[in-house]
Amino acid sequence: MAKRRSPGSQGALRAANEARVVSALRGSPATQSEIAERTGLAHATVSNIVRDLRERGAVSTAPTVHQGRRASLVTLERAEGPTVVGVDFGRQHVRIAVAADDPIVLVEDEVALAPGHRADESLAIAAERLDELLRDAGLRRADVAAICVGVPCPIDRRTGSILGHSILPEWDGVTRDRIGEAFGMPVEVANDSDLGAIAERSFGAYSGVDDLIFVKIGTGIGSGLVIGGRLHSGAFGIAGELGHVQVDANGTLCVCGSRGCLETLASARVMAQSLSAAFGRPITTADIVRQAIDGDPATRRVVADAGVAIGRAVANAANLLAPSAVVVGGPLAEAGELLLEPVRDGFRRFALHPLATSTEIAGTTLGSRAEVLGAVTLARQTARAAAFI
Amino acid sequence: MAKRRSPGSQGALRAANEARVVSALRGSPATQSEIAERTGLAHATVSNIVRDLRERGAVSTAPTVHQGRRASLVTLERAEGPTVVGVDFGRQHVRIAVAADDPIVLVEDEVALAPGHRADESLAIAAERLDELLRDAGLRRADVAAICVGVPCPIDRRTGSILGHSILPEWDGVTRDRIGEAFGMPVEVANDSDLGAIAERSFGAYSGVDDLIFVKIGTGIGSGLVIGGRLHSGAFGIAGELGHVQVDANGTLCVCGSRGCLETLASARVMAQSLSAAFGRPITTADIVRQAIDGDPATRRVVADAGVAIGRAVANAANLLAPSAVVVGGPLAEAGELLLEPVRDGFRRFALHPLATSTEIAGTTLGSRAEVLGAVTLARQTARAAAFI
Repeated sequence: MAKRRSPGSQGALRAANEARVVSALRGSPATQSEIAERTGLAHATVSNIVRDLRERGAVSTAPTVHQGRRASLVTLERAEGPTVVGVDFGRQHVRIAVAADDPIVLVEDEVALAPGHRADESLAIAAERLDELLRDAGLRRADVAAICVGVPCPIDRRTGSILGHSILPEWDGVTRDRIGEAFGMPVEVANDSDLGAIAERSFGAYSGVDDLIFVKIGTGIGSGLVIGGRLHSGAFGIAGELGHVQVDANGTLCVCGSRGCLETLASARVMAQSLSAAFGRPITTADIVRQAIDGDPATRRVVADAGVAIGRAVANAANLLAPSAVVVGGPLAEAGELLLEPVRDGFRRFALHPLATSTEIAGTTLGSRAEVLGAVTLARQTARAAAFI
Repeated sequence: MAKRRSPGSQGALRAANEARVVSALRGSPATQSEIAERTGLAHATVSNIVRDLRERGAVSTAPTVHQGRRASLVTLERAEGPTVVGVDFGRQHVRIAVAADDPIVLVEDEVALAPGHRADESLAIAAERLDELLRDAGLRRADVAAICVGVPCPIDRRTGSILGHSILPEWDGVTRDRIGEAFGMPVEVANDSDLGAIAERSFGAYSGVDDLIFVKIGTGIGSGLVIGGRLHSGAFGIAGELGHVQVDANGTLCVCGSRGCLETLASARVMAQSLSAAFGRPITTADIVRQAIDGDPATRRVVADAGVAIGRAVANAANLLAPSAVVVGGPLAEAGELLLEPVRDGFRRFALHPLATSTEIAGTTLGSRAEVLGAVTLARQTARAAAFI
């Protein structure tokens, strides 16, 4: 069962307003006053949106004079590139971004989905919202050169189907073709942590770093590996399963069939279980982050324990891969240093000395947008490759 | 302190005879009788050497008639390629191969070194033996286009120096330049497990496989990672430290500063310690292999326990890297299935299901030559790259 974020919600409103601004700039540059006139938006709203668009490279601004006053002329940047779409499905959301050339995101929105959402329903919701976003940006489906869809599961490249078993059982066995049908065109399907790694390598604080691990801490734990400057997907697409690196030989049974996997110690699911039992009420991932920031001792302890376990598993991965940087993302990363310091502690304890003293461990600077930005990047690569055929 | 293998030992004799045969073929092809005449070797000796040389592609044979009889004309293959040298230092040996074009090994020999051998002495021994081998093959130092030297330690690419700390303390801090001085020319220095991985990828049973882990089980445990068809050395050259992947959170202290590393459970060093204590006499790596093959229950138990622990660590590595094949080499691999079956058991228990059912785990087909063949391959690449400058 999926529920739509109400259309009047702040995120949806902002996305729609952003799309109107982008639309107003198609064809010719305009001052902020002109944009306000063309769109009917308040000056302050336009100013905020232009600032954000400029920060992500979607527009440039230059000083000009308008009706005798100093003003700022806003120009849509290189928007003539192919239009591509990135979609990021999580356990409780889908985020959609429509983008033009590198890295202009034209419109973007997130829709909440109920836990245990079913593939068909969620795909229909995403396709419908995509059409709305395209319409907002003055585009149609036919303008889209490529779509990349991220899912929080491994994808078996041999069959093109999702191995949803332990994370999204309702999506298990869903194929690339079926997802493509929902969007009315062929799509690429990728693991969300892999997309996060691509985004970090492209836009994050460690962009350009050749050896990087992106760790996503959420309901499950996954990682994306950039090795020698390239994403590593392994023999048939399932590399990076950090959540199933074993940290406790005789530990709790994991749904994957092993014991003591990192996920059995440090995922938001396990943390929520411990805290729900302790507090006698249901605790969500968002609660964990909020309570930790608010200083609740039990929550901080759970976060710290998880962090040390994550650091230990990351040290094992680093002893093999010797990355320059480890970037932590996913919903739990919003706890910031409360999570990162224990991760670094665990890492230093179990990493080889030269790595313990040189590998940087940091939180993502891309927030919850990392995965969808990675999807946009992959879609853009596909669109470019297709243009050369 | 290092001791030379006696010059009359079988290996040295064979290497010298092989070199004489190769030397006799320089300039013009010859029948086996002519080779016997030119070298003074017995016909049976020549026949054996020619068969081996043909198997490794160093010579080709064609039917001919010699003095009215059917005979076999032996031709040196493509020996006009640049001459390169591979050197493989272990804790108790150095193996040297002089090679011409792909993959012709002209002459090869192994010299025993005492445990704890010092870098200067061992380098001098290796350089002297190299000169002898070159002379045997009718070559001089000036003919050598590139040398690659393998060591059983990580090498810090930032400084070009060996991190021998835990494996060869006597070699700690030795630099590429110092090794180059010993050989009278610039050399490349590489980790021996990395060289094993290169050799497996080039000549082994899984040659051409894009994602492969070579695991070396000896006094220490290391691995070489072929990822996406390329050797992965990590941020500054120390990737693949499988011996320091943690398999027991509260395990024995490791010399690296961590606890419960694979090396503390499954290296030949630890196995020899257990068995020496049980038997009340010193047990060597060779003893372990022999006793296991002979059916000694204590030795088989130690080998099986080590195998399961190795399989568990390899599963952790595979859950991250999703390789197609894992190839086990190093001295302990000579125990064959007695080691490999427990490795597969441990692997299946802790690897994700799609990997547990598809990753091939096998012993090396290159025996103790894997590392030196990798060194030859790397030296050849260097020689070719230099030819284009």
